[in-house]
Amino acid sequence: MEGNAKRIDHIGIAVYSIEKALPFYEDVLQLKLLAIEEVDSQGVRVAFLEIGQSKIELLEPLSEKSPIFSFLKKKGEGIHHIAVGVSNIDARIEELKAKGVQMVHDKAVEGAGGAHIAFIHPKSANGALVEFCEKK
Amino acid sequence: MEGNAKRIDHIGIAVYSIEKALPFYEDVLQLKLLAIEEVDSQGVRVAFLEIGQSKIELLEPLSEKSPIFSFLKKKGEGIHHIAVGVSNIDARIEELKAKGVQMVHDKAVEGAGGAHIAFIHPKSANGALVEFCEKK
Repeated sequence: MEGNAKRIDHIGIAVYSIEKALPFYEDVLQLKLLAIEEVDSQGVRVAFLEIGQSKIELLEPLSEKSPIFSFLKKKGEGIHHIAVGVSNIDARIEELKAKGVQMVHDKAVEGAGGAHIAFIHPKSANGALVEFCEKK
Repeated sequence: MEGNAKRIDHIGIAVYSIEKALPFYEDVLQLKLLAIEEVDSQGVRVAFLEIGQSKIELLEPLSEKSPIFSFLKKKGEGIHHIAVGVSNIDARIEELKAKGVQMVHDKAVEGAGGAHIAFIHPKSANGALVEFCEKK
């Protein structure tokens, strides 16, 4: 099947405060801030910074109900997930399910920037949280 | 100062067993395995897989003395660090120290593939473990 994962779209990093985290990424790593937006469906505010063909996505929980808040409570601030850029995400999800891979999302849902996204369950990925991400 | 971080060189993922983790990366994500090597100075065996202009680096501890073994015991398998590709790593380290950034390595040390690497302390990076990596 076509549509191989050939690019890291972004790396998601959980933080309590985008405002407090940004100076490290902008001033120390000298990355360019592209956008800040709220993704209500995921309960997060996100900031995207450009790094080569990829992005850093800072994730700040909007409330204690956000999965990012749970992650912060359990593991503290740090790297949360890797997003792999794919084309034809629906076909990729079906392909993975046929291989017995457990998905967090059985069908693509809307993510930041209007992307279609689906997370693979860490149980099927040796503990890493991996997202498929298709930009329209 | 020149030498901006413009590329994710690799993402390090801690695993108990490269052998057990590889099928996910090779068969499910369909990434190409580039190399497997031991890095005695870090106490790890590493496998590199290609993804666009970046790589996935699977890290398996060689012994219980490895920092990766400590990470696995504390946090379980999962994403360990982000490596940012830089040129002139020595100048970048001095630049960061002048900005008050705390480094794990005050000077570059040898990493996998003969690269020169230095880790920024997570205290200075909002909990994320970030590596500078210069390929010779």
